[in-house]
Amino acid sequence: MRIDVFSIFPEYLAPLDLSLIGKARRTGLLDLTVHDLREFTHDRHRTVDDAPAGGGAGMVMKPEPWAEALGTLAEGPRRPTLLVPSPSGQPFTQAMARELAQQDWLAFACGRYEGIDERVYEHAATLMPVRPFSLGDYVLNGGEVAVLAVVEAVARLIPGVIGNAESLVEESHEDGLLEYPVYTKPAVWQDREVPAVLMSGHHAQIERWRRDERLRRTARRRPDLILKLDPGTLDKVDRAVLAEEGWSVEGSQFRLPARPVAD
Amino acid sequence: MRIDVFSIFPEYLAPLDLSLIGKARRTGLLDLTVHDLREFTHDRHRTVDDAPAGGGAGMVMKPEPWAEALGTLAEGPRRPTLLVPSPSGQPFTQAMARELAQQDWLAFACGRYEGIDERVYEHAATLMPVRPFSLGDYVLNGGEVAVLAVVEAVARLIPGVIGNAESLVEESHEDGLLEYPVYTKPAVWQDREVPAVLMSGHHAQIERWRRDERLRRTARRRPDLILKLDPGTLDKVDRAVLAEEGWSVEGSQFRLPARPVAD
Repeated sequence: MRIDVFSIFPEYLAPLDLSLIGKARRTGLLDLTVHDLREFTHDRHRTVDDAPAGGGAGMVMKPEPWAEALGTLAEGPRRPTLLVPSPSGQPFTQAMARELAQQDWLAFACGRYEGIDERVYEHAATLMPVRPFSLGDYVLNGGEVAVLAVVEAVARLIPGVIGNAESLVEESHEDGLLEYPVYTKPAVWQDREVPAVLMSGHHAQIERWRRDERLRRTARRRPDLILKLDPGTLDKVDRAVLAEEGWSVEGSQFRLPARPVAD
Repeated sequence: MRIDVFSIFPEYLAPLDLSLIGKARRTGLLDLTVHDLREFTHDRHRTVDDAPAGGGAGMVMKPEPWAEALGTLAEGPRRPTLLVPSPSGQPFTQAMARELAQQDWLAFACGRYEGIDERVYEHAATLMPVRPFSLGDYVLNGGEVAVLAVVEAVARLIPGVIGNAESLVEESHEDGLLEYPVYTKPAVWQDREVPAVLMSGHHAQIERWRRDERLRRTARRRPDLILKLDPGTLDKVDRAVLAEEGWSVEGSQFRLPARPVAD
């Protein structure tokens, strides 16, 4: 996969040299380049921002450097999908990570200050698909951290980037449930024991326990995720666990418990 | 504010030296230390992980190094709030950022691999408040990127960290609406004009236009946020704008439009 990132703080993206992502770049699974947006300015001060039209606090990123930078992505017949981190964008999810992991070229435009001149979005959309996205419902100083997160979430789904691909299967958000609690040695640590079932060697019971824990934890911490489940996909034990947590089924959807169970 | 971060990849946190956060550290507004978790191991290989109890793919972070690391935070009478990035945690929001910005000591425990032995959470909770949080509904390789995001979102709310504090007021997620589109010079760029109202100098009309754009954009991109609004807080013009987008009020809540307006 090819990835191009444009930012006025290229050094912010340094973590992409580390760990599994760094390794994927060195082995050629990921062809990632970070570009300094200021290389596309032509004045002595390398200006990328100006006062907002209509007044107000802060600065707005000028259209010209962005148009020139993004133009370099539209020189050949192939075009990337342009992802623009913005608190006003579509919320980034695991489903979107899976979808992006299928693509062969992604580009990221990191806004700073009050954002990028709106006309850049309109102009870019004439050249390539443009997707403003939001990392979550909170505000950051710029798009760089959002790009770190999305590149990590997407790249780890590319075959070969993570050694043991089977560890991807039972993760949170892959099937709408949170993860089960994990334990390792020692069996007893500071008077706290690893749950007996995990020491039993009984594979089917361990699987069942882990699934029960995922259901319970999701019910207690993220009722919004239970509401999205299709009860038809759950077996009898699954439904009994949720019933214990106070959930009932109405039609083809779960109904919120009257008195939530504390975590 | 004091912040302690524990990670097996301290170099991942290097972006916290840059830009406004770096400046806040240099001016003393932020007393941030990144600790290498491996400093709290005592074997030759500085082992931090082991196989999961009960079997399965991946590795689990051992309890001992974490207990020793977190113990250093519990030596005096003051205790931090311990934030643990985890896909199973409570979703991080701007409201949580505001709440954390009021505190004077935060600590972060970055998990890697399949997560941290569950007993560490139980043990830590006997020493200090523990809050597992999730950056969003997607999976990362470890907690480091989540910590970058949360430190940025929280630190920028500390008085003095951002120069022009008034720019914080009209941001996305501060009042439940997305941001308005921004423009800067030139007034005409590649045949695209800055909206005439923004060039009018008419302050009240500009304010109204911006609010209309925020309402429209939120209605089109994030109907979930409109559903959370109290119609009683909106004026007549606000409600007329939402009516144009197909929204109607039922009781004290908005009702989803039958045919959504495309963005």
